[in-house]
Amino acid sequence: MFDFRLEATSGAARAGLLTLPHGPVETPVFMPVGTQGTVRTLSPRDLATVGARLVLANTYHLHVRPGEDVIATLGGLHRFMGWEGPLLTDSGGFQVFSLDGFRQVDEDGVEFQSHVDGARRHLTPERATDIQWVLDADVAMAFDHVAPGEADEATARDALERTMRWLERCARRHRELLDGRPVGPSDREGQTLRAAERPTVRQTLWPILQGGTHQTLRAEGLQRILEIGNWTGLAVGGLAVGEPKAAMYETLEALAPRLPATLPRYLMGVGFPEDLVAAVERGMDLFDCVAPTRNGRNGTAFTPDGPVNIRNAAHRADPRPLDSSCDCETCTTFSRGYLRHLFVAEELLGLRLLSLHNVRYLIRLAAQMRAAIRAGHFPRWATDWRRRYTQPG
Amino acid sequence: MFDFRLEATSGAARAGLLTLPHGPVETPVFMPVGTQGTVRTLSPRDLATVGARLVLANTYHLHVRPGEDVIATLGGLHRFMGWEGPLLTDSGGFQVFSLDGFRQVDEDGVEFQSHVDGARRHLTPERATDIQWVLDADVAMAFDHVAPGEADEATARDALERTMRWLERCARRHRELLDGRPVGPSDREGQTLRAAERPTVRQTLWPILQGGTHQTLRAEGLQRILEIGNWTGLAVGGLAVGEPKAAMYETLEALAPRLPATLPRYLMGVGFPEDLVAAVERGMDLFDCVAPTRNGRNGTAFTPDGPVNIRNAAHRADPRPLDSSCDCETCTTFSRGYLRHLFVAEELLGLRLLSLHNVRYLIRLAAQMRAAIRAGHFPRWATDWRRRYTQPG
Repeated sequence: MFDFRLEATSGAARAGLLTLPHGPVETPVFMPVGTQGTVRTLSPRDLATVGARLVLANTYHLHVRPGEDVIATLGGLHRFMGWEGPLLTDSGGFQVFSLDGFRQVDEDGVEFQSHVDGARRHLTPERATDIQWVLDADVAMAFDHVAPGEADEATARDALERTMRWLERCARRHRELLDGRPVGPSDREGQTLRAAERPTVRQTLWPILQGGTHQTLRAEGLQRILEIGNWTGLAVGGLAVGEPKAAMYETLEALAPRLPATLPRYLMGVGFPEDLVAAVERGMDLFDCVAPTRNGRNGTAFTPDGPVNIRNAAHRADPRPLDSSCDCETCTTFSRGYLRHLFVAEELLGLRLLSLHNVRYLIRLAAQMRAAIRAGHFPRWATDWRRRYTQPG
Repeated sequence: MFDFRLEATSGAARAGLLTLPHGPVETPVFMPVGTQGTVRTLSPRDLATVGARLVLANTYHLHVRPGEDVIATLGGLHRFMGWEGPLLTDSGGFQVFSLDGFRQVDEDGVEFQSHVDGARRHLTPERATDIQWVLDADVAMAFDHVAPGEADEATARDALERTMRWLERCARRHRELLDGRPVGPSDREGQTLRAAERPTVRQTLWPILQGGTHQTLRAEGLQRILEIGNWTGLAVGGLAVGEPKAAMYETLEALAPRLPATLPRYLMGVGFPEDLVAAVERGMDLFDCVAPTRNGRNGTAFTPDGPVNIRNAAHRADPRPLDSSCDCETCTTFSRGYLRHLFVAEELLGLRLLSLHNVRYLIRLAAQMRAAIRAGHFPRWATDWRRRYTQPG
């Protein structure tokens, strides 16, 4: 039920086909982020319209609200959010480390304060695995310890070592669940979820490689990850978390040749159009980021000629579409003048129309990269794309 | 290009077919309100999906922002907002009288303060007619003077008399525009709109009957309106503006037998489901109200069993749809538990999903009334509907 077939390469860039329980996913692929079980402003029908395939949801947020028990009662995350395509859940590790408020890490896990009601909560590798199992995503992620982007080697090693130990615990727990062991009690209800509410499809678990921008740590971590499991995919975490972009690119360049060709590679939290292209150039396959929806809500649209701020007065009576090459509802229906009006008049439809376009833009960008890889001219395509995106006109 | 055919009656209720330049409209009909050139949270594609036919936009709001000059440059209101079906614009009269802030009425028109930038603006019957002409709606409304719902007879007569004099000025101006006279200068740009930006379809102008809850004033006003023009439709204004509901119903009951059967009757600003049914029982044909979208954004959904507040904790893990008899995207895709989660988590999608359902609910309600009228059993249908809506369970 989990399969990755590498279809073509061009330079270090790869095109592949990832098969998941809820359907196939062509790579490179951009995953829209449905933090709270909804990709902000977009309906599942919108997501299908813009060609979304694999959608990400955040375990931390859904655990805190409405709680995995509610989602299980309502038929699991797919049915809950009305998305019948493949889903991937992060583990909550990144959120626990990146959100403000109290947190305390020890070997067992992380104690933290809910951003919703301030209540103390506890996440462990086993608990994060249980929650994702109950959510019933196609792909679950291991619970990891994320160090800041510019962490020194000792700090980065500490996070890597803990992540490795937690990975073994996640893998053990996930195996037990696959073997039919019930999930543990909910930390709010104190009740074990009923059998009827358990997942009906087999879920896979992907490890997360940490190690900051320290290439030796990345290489060592990778080797240890590959030794302890027969994974169906692998994520690169701890990048795009505040380090200089050059350091992220160098880390990926050094890492790519060591990664097994047969595993899909998920670069977490990336990104903006230029980062997506740079990461595909460095052998990455899957991406997620809130940039298209967050920027869309701020009035910034991605276009082949670089970002456009639709609030700009220059667009007041501009009859052109946002992006004349785009096939989305926003670009085929509305003028820049109308979109600007929606933002100036604070109409909610504007937030949605720019989010819709930006998600479509990144999905098309991934599809264009895939086509260039399969045609064997990805390096030239990337050069041309970058020239136009960064030096329009 | 303007035609109204009465197809059936049942009691005082009527079913008809109104033909407008942008297409036919079956009555009774509920018009969603696109105040600023957008029905809040809904795209034109959403509107088509829920079966909307005739959509209303507000002249006052569009005049103040972005300005009719911008809309004309962008191809008129239909193209601006991406709505290819029929459009009706109100005249701005109601807004000028109901919005807060400075306003000064004299015989010429109204001076008021823009709610956007505080600038002084001036609306006259001629100017309101010009603006609507430039917007290019199928149906324009005459510029009226609205008195408060509980105005005494002297105040109501004063408003009626001014509305009558203004109606003659609107009609004269509209005739000039139809005869090819250019529109007057924009009050901001000081420039006459270019010929190429003028409307391409013939527009009709409907009068608005005032007179408060004073039946003699209503009867007199109606007679005078019918004497001065060969109208294609007629609006009843100055109701649902603060008077007791019983007074509104009585006014309509007294008025209905006097109205010519051949004209479609538009009851402005109504309404909630129970008001729609009561007004159809009293011979009204067209309705508009922000209730479905405003209530939707507040978390209140219309259902056949009365309103449902989706924020209620009872819906936390409720797998049922909002309205099991409804065919909208919201009701066919999502559980009440998910919709509640969206509202509790302050996700924008929730505002849209409830707005979408509520608009669909009123459009279906109008269609159900139409079917009952054509089947000849509307009075019984209305009794049954009211019993279920007000006494669920």
